[in-house]
This record gives sequence, structure tokens and C-alpha cells, in this order.
Amino acid sequence: MAFEKIKRSENYSEWYNNLVKNADLAEHAAVKGCMVIKPYGYAIWEKIQQQLDKMFKQTGHSNAYFPLLIPKSFFEKEEKNAAGFAKECAVVTHYRLKVDENRKIIVDEDAKLEEELIIRPTSEAIIWSTYKGWIQSYRDLPILINQWANVMRWEMRTRLFLRTSEFLWQEGHTAHATSDEAIAETKQMLEVYAEFAETFMGVPVVKGVKTENERFAGAIETYCIEGLMQDGKALQMGTSHFLGQNFAKAFDVKFQTKEGKLEYVWATSWGVSTRLMGALVMAHSDDDGLVLPPKLAPIHVVIVPIYKTDAEREKVETLALEIRKKLEALDLSVKFDNRDTYKPGFKFAEWELKGVPLRMGIGPRDVENGTVELARRDTREKSVIGVEGIDTYVKNLLDEIQEAIYKRAKDFRDSNIHEVNTWDEFVEVLDTKGGFISAHWDGTADVEEKIKGLTKATIRCIPLNNKPESGKCILTGNPSVQRVLFAKAY
Amino acid sequence: MAFEKIKRSENYSEWYNNLVKNADLAEHAAVKGCMVIKPYGYAIWEKIQQQLDKMFKQTGHSNAYFPLLIPKSFFEKEEKNAAGFAKECAVVTHYRLKVDENRKIIVDEDAKLEEELIIRPTSEAIIWSTYKGWIQSYRDLPILINQWANVMRWEMRTRLFLRTSEFLWQEGHTAHATSDEAIAETKQMLEVYAEFAETFMGVPVVKGVKTENERFAGAIETYCIEGLMQDGKALQMGTSHFLGQNFAKAFDVKFQTKEGKLEYVWATSWGVSTRLMGALVMAHSDDDGLVLPPKLAPIHVVIVPIYKTDAEREKVETLALEIRKKLEALDLSVKFDNRDTYKPGFKFAEWELKGVPLRMGIGPRDVENGTVELARRDTREKSVIGVEGIDTYVKNLLDEIQEAIYKRAKDFRDSNIHEVNTWDEFVEVLDTKGGFISAHWDGTADVEEKIKGLTKATIRCIPLNNKPESGKCILTGNPSVQRVLFAKAY
Repeated sequence: MAFEKIKRSENYSEWYNNLVKNADLAEHAAVKGCMVIKPYGYAIWEKIQQQLDKMFKQTGHSNAYFPLLIPKSFFEKEEKNAAGFAKECAVVTHYRLKVDENRKIIVDEDAKLEEELIIRPTSEAIIWSTYKGWIQSYRDLPILINQWANVMRWEMRTRLFLRTSEFLWQEGHTAHATSDEAIAETKQMLEVYAEFAETFMGVPVVKGVKTENERFAGAIETYCIEGLMQDGKALQMGTSHFLGQNFAKAFDVKFQTKEGKLEYVWATSWGVSTRLMGALVMAHSDDDGLVLPPKLAPIHVVIVPIYKTDAEREKVETLALEIRKKLEALDLSVKFDNRDTYKPGFKFAEWELKGVPLRMGIGPRDVENGTVELARRDTREKSVIGVEGIDTYVKNLLDEIQEAIYKRAKDFRDSNIHEVNTWDEFVEVLDTKGGFISAHWDGTADVEEKIKGLTKATIRCIPLNNKPESGKCILTGNPSVQRVLFAKAY
Repeated sequence: MAFEKIKRSENYSEWYNNLVKNADLAEHAAVKGCMVIKPYGYAIWEKIQQQLDKMFKQTGHSNAYFPLLIPKSFFEKEEKNAAGFAKECAVVTHYRLKVDENRKIIVDEDAKLEEELIIRPTSEAIIWSTYKGWIQSYRDLPILINQWANVMRWEMRTRLFLRTSEFLWQEGHTAHATSDEAIAETKQMLEVYAEFAETFMGVPVVKGVKTENERFAGAIETYCIEGLMQDGKALQMGTSHFLGQNFAKAFDVKFQTKEGKLEYVWATSWGVSTRLMGALVMAHSDDDGLVLPPKLAPIHVVIVPIYKTDAEREKVETLALEIRKKLEALDLSVKFDNRDTYKPGFKFAEWELKGVPLRMGIGPRDVENGTVELARRDTREKSVIGVEGIDTYVKNLLDEIQEAIYKRAKDFRDSNIHEVNTWDEFVEVLDTKGGFISAHWDGTADVEEKIKGLTKATIRCIPLNNKPESGKCILTGNPSVQRVLFAKAY
């Protein structure tokens, strides 16, 4: 290809940026901090959306749409939420432009808004102000709504998919009659996220609870899934919040119980974003390009014809089209790359870069022998396979690839959870190996802050499957009742 | 139901507003001019999206995503486009809020943007500034991209779905090597819209070209589909623009031709929006509620059990569940309304309000006789049908309903295209009958403006299938070569 290849081992960060651009996933937009998601990248996002949407609907949720703009005063109502998000908001102050005497477009100062409007950084405020009108009685509960939307958080240092000022996401916002029901919903959606990450993205995750420092502004408890990238840094892939009655109190949303009492409503919210695209790239890809799990790959199989003469071309293409038809009948997505402006070697490199799970080469000898050559993107293994029954063979092989990609990521993750017991060990492992570090911590926000200041490592979560274990805090030596997972994170 | 019923014949506008709210389609948001699309309304929008998206992909388009915010200076580049949209834009001037000494949230004046950002009213500017980086050679063309997004046009007088400050839409933006190819694309997408409107929404449309006055700001030619609502007013349901080289020139997007010359790229853009929801409601619904065409109905069949005793209930529910299973096996969406808090009559009214195409009542006598009662929403016809083969019967009946809804709308539309030849006739028909008025016009923007000023009627389009016909302009008596379609419009 015509661009520079950068190795993961040399500069992981540059490797990532280059790959996202070269594989046509996304690029920086003319607007600072924002991105353009290109068709190939968006096709992957659409697959992510479709699958998650299906899972949300299977668990009883419906989609709806709430406004982009939120009156500034709404933010004041939930104090912690406001403090958490006020720093980084795009503020709309005017509603008209005009053309001045020099034919320049300027802001019309006569069109100043009485109250400024904020582009949503998250929608709890606008949604709970709306739910107030929808909820009177226990009969109106639960409300199980999801929204697919764009949101905006002003960011100074941005990276494609991982941290951009505007990003795409889904945000679930549910309302319940009891605390138990809301907590069950919070946990259910965490499970949905974990299942999606592992089964579809092929990324193993640790399910856990955030510490107070890392909790969503306005939540009682934040659950999360954390993945491990190939450079040993963690990435928060999704969060599910139990919001208690905080937003119901902020927006005065009460309901009449079966017994006739008036009570505040219980809430959850949960979201994943285009950040998952970053996780997908960083968890599996290699120095030659993307490695996409078949379940999220826009193209499952690329067929590259190999020929010299026109007569050869005709034979090869006939077989290629036959095979494509069979594969498509099994709901596989097939690209037949018959461009005659490029040579096979160029095409091989291009589809490797784009992470297509299987490449099928067909030459004149294959036509004679009734075979094709299959090359796996994940392992680079090549094999010559008979045309007879190729469709089910390919389908099964794609399942095998999906499994293999997950297993490799899981082996990597499992071998990169390090138990440490002293501060020196902690610092050394963090510097030399990275990964998740399982260590004792005394449970105070203050010490967590200090560790972050000293090492940049944060507590990613307290794993849900944690065993109680008494020990001593790695920094203070104070007593601790369990290990938590530290890591440097995106 | 617990709310006021308003008749179309008494107050069409109030009827519409009430219906949109009572049928749980949408409501006004806390933010002026914006709407909340409620789950039932959004489910219809999702059906619209899915079908259109399929049609866009079948015609070779891919989805992508471009930024919400556009630098103000980009608007200056295409002068007409700027003049057309500058009036009505939301302007972002700051990127931070802060908490003042009284714990009020205020705009942080230190965080003023050097250049203001505009929330996209449409995306030609940001997309063509991006295409500049994507297009060098004829090999890079065509680019066939669509975007599903929210856009914002500040509106003073708003109506749910028909005119809101924020709305959801899709916008196609394509780039071509030749003028012919771009014009063919423009027309192709008009055909896609027309087919969607007629086959899926059941709304017959006139395909035509806009006059210069009504053309998209920045287009060479705007094609449109126009529907007729039950009150005799027209509604523009979709537009497809041939943009010539205007945006390529504004953003300096050139390509090298096969012959090695440098030329500006040719462009199209095309869009439909949540406005289609308004068309759907206004074209078919009646005084009792929505009438949804089966192809866009979130629920095809509602089953309402009718019983007195527990024993009856059990029998009735068993049959209902059997039938639901059969219908679902044919990909039909079935709601089994077994709420015991409401009586059948209440449920009937609720599902009529929500426009479910078929209601199936099952009582103890039905169980005995092996029958059910089917009630069509569109005609109100009821019939008793044997359970044997009910699934294919229902599926066929839904097709018949789809057809019938379209036919009724088409008959109404066809009988409301009035040819007039004098000004008096024009004014009289407009006042008494409404509908489309086919009349001669001298082709000048000035006269079109005058007619609008005198009557509020605008030229909806010059129909594509127009026959040349010499005549005299209804207002000026000047010579005219063809009739055009006037109407009062939403």
C-alpha cells in the first residue's frame, strides 16, 4: 500500500492512529476534536448497533428520541451531575446569523437566547424532566427506554473513537417502582454488555463496580466492563448506573404506589459508544491491519481472481460467481474483487489491512482441480479446499475464527492479570508488564488519588466475582478486605 | 379514552395535534421548538428508516457520519446556501460552563470559541470540505454516501413532526465525474422516495421539479415528491437536488479525468425527514385515531380476549396464544392485550387510536366454534373467520388493507387535482375545495411571489409527466407553455 506501516511494538499509539485512518475507519474532521466516520468504519458500527439493539429489545426495551439541546437550568437540578459535566459542554447562545455590510456572515446579536442551551453530554436531565409528565402511578412503571444519539463533551486531547468531542452512543434510561428492580435492571444491562463484548467483539471483559472516584456523576453505583488492549492498557467499554432516586428527586418525579402512597421513582442509565470501535481495533489488530471478528465484519469473505489471459479470467470468474452465490445463500457477505486496475498482491494487502476474516484466491489451476485457496486473516494459515461443500466449510471456519480471536484475546488478558503485594512490585509490574494489577487498597478515595498521581494507574473496578481476602494496602499498609484491579487506562 | 376527541371536520389542525399526542407518537419538549419522539412514534420511524436504508443500499449507497458542528466560515463558501440557511441556525459560542459563587451554573466567558460553530441545518458544507480530501482521480468516483442524523433549523412556529427546530432525517450526498451521472442519481433517488411513499406509506405522490423560488439554496435543480393531506393541503415529502458543481467550486474539489484533465466534481443531495411521520398521520387517520398502513405498523394484529369467568379466560387465552404463535411464524407483529385492568371496549378504543390494522377478538363462543372476530381498522368491517388457516388469511388481509389504504388516498388525491383557467376560478377553488390546482403560470419568479402573497398558494412543482400545453398565466395573462401545480402547503 502507498502509506507507511507502523509496528505496534515501535509505537502503539501511532500504529493505532495510522490503522484507523488507513483502514478507512475514520478521520479527524475540520471541526476540532470531532471525527468523520467513514463508510467502512460506519458499516462496523452499524453491525454493533444492530446486534445491541436486538439485545435491548429482547430484554424489553423500546427506542425513543429526546432533544439534543438542554436548558442550562436543568443542569443545576442534579448537583453532582452538573458538576461532573459542566466543565466540558458546547453552549448555544444565539439562534441566528446574518450577513454584514462586507458580506461576511456574523452572529446576529439581536438573536441572543434568554437561557443558554447545552448540547447534551448525556441525557438524564432532559429525560427525567420528560418522565415527570409520563409517570403518575405504579401502572406507568417500569419505563424501559433506549436512545441512539450523538452527544458532545468538549475534549482538549482527542483520539479517533477513543476520545472525541462528539461521539455516537446509546443511552438507556429506565424508571422503576422499587430499588431492587432498578438494581436488577442495572445488572442485567451489564450482562448484556459483557455478552456482546465477548460473543460478538471477541473481547473478554472484567465485570465490576467502580470506586467512588470513578463513579458516574449522579449515580449511587456504577457497574462497568473493562477490556485489556494489546499494549497492556485497560479500556472501559461500557457502564451501567444505578441512579437511586437522585434524578427523580432533582426533577420531582413521584408515583402512587399500589398502596396509595407517593414515592420517588428509581432510575438506571447505561451506555456504550463508538469507543467500542477503538476497543475492537486495539484488542485484535496486528502490524498488517485490522483483524475483525466475523460477527462484526462488514465483509466475511473476499474473493480475489488470479489469471493471465482473458480465457483464464472467464473461467475463474465463472467459478468465483458460483461460489459467491452459494455463500450469500448462507447470509454471508462476500466481496468479489474483480478490479483489473490492481494486481492480486495489492488486493491481498488491502483486504488484510481491512481485516476481512477470509480471503479466497481462485486461479486457473483451481478451476481445473475444483479447489480454491483460503487464507485466514487471524492466523495467516492458508489451505487448499475442494469446491464441493465450500459454503458450509466457510461458514464453519468463520465460527472457528470468531472463537479463535476471542480465545487469543482471552489468553492474553488472563496472562496479564498480575497479583502484587508491595508498592515496589506494583510500580515495577506497571512499568515493565502493564496489564491489570490485582492489589490490596485501603478503600479510601484519597489513597486512590495518590496512587493515580504517582503512577497514572487508576482502579478500573472492584470485580464482581471478587473473593474476600484480608491484606494490606500497597501504598499505606492499612488493612484491606479485598483486592481491586488497577491499570493504566484509555 | 380519557381525553377529548376532536373531529377533522371541525378543526383539522387541532385534530392533528391531539392525535399525535394521544396516540403516543410525540410531544413538545421542554426546549422550545423541539420534540420528544415517544416509543410508539419512534417504532414507526424505525420501520421507515429500515425500509429506506434497505433501498439506499440496494442502489449502491453506504452510510457514514459527519460532524454535528460546522465552522461558521464554511457557510460563506457557497453563497446561496449560506443565505438560505443562515437565518435559522443554532450558534455555539462557548465550550464550558462554570459554577459561580452563588452555586449557579453560568457560561464561562474564558471559554469563548475563536470561531463560532453552527449546529448543522444540512451537511453539504461539512461533507464537501471532507470530500476534498477523498477525491483526486476519476477512480475515486462516484462517492455514494448517506447519513442518518439530527439537524437543526431554528423555527418560530413549530408543529410536531411537520416543523420542529430539531428533526431527524437522512441526507444522501453523492459525488460524480459527469453531469449526466449526477442527474441520473438525482432522479433515481426521487424514484426511490416515490416508491417508498406509495408502496410503504400508502401515500400517492406527484413527482416534479421545483421552481427557482422553491429550489434548495445551492441547487441547480430540485426534484420533489408532493403528497396531498386530507384537508386539501399539500405536503412536500422528500427532495432530491442536482447541485451541479456549486459545492465542488465552493470547496475546491477537483478530480483528474481518465484523459488527465482536472475538472470540478458533480454533486447531488437528497433527504427525507421525520416530517414523513406527519404525512403518514395526516393522509390516512380519522376521527378515532391513526390508520397505519400494515407495512409501517409496529403492531399488525392486536388480540383482545373476551371472557367473564376464569375458566373462560383460560380457554380464550390458550387459543389466543396458539394463534399468536402462528402469526409470528409469518413475521407478523402481534400484541396480545391480556391486561385485566381494562375492559374490552376500552382496549378496542385504545388500539383504534393507535391505528393497529387488525383487531382480533376472541370470546368463549369463538373457542367453541373454532372462530375469531376480525375488525379492520381502515374500513371498520368486522367478520367472523375460522381458526383453520387464520395465519395466511390474516397475512393476505394485511396486504389487502395496505392496498386499500393507498387506493383511498389515491382516489382522494386524484379527485382533488383541479384544472382552472382564470384567476377567479383559481381563488374560488382554492377557498372552497383546496387540493392541487393545475393552472398556467408565466414562468416568472415575480408572479409566483405575487400569487403567494395574494392567496398563500405556492407552486408545489412542475410535474415530471407534464404535457406541453400553451395557455395564459392565470394572474397576468402572459403566455405559458405548461400547467404547474399550485396548492396551499404545510
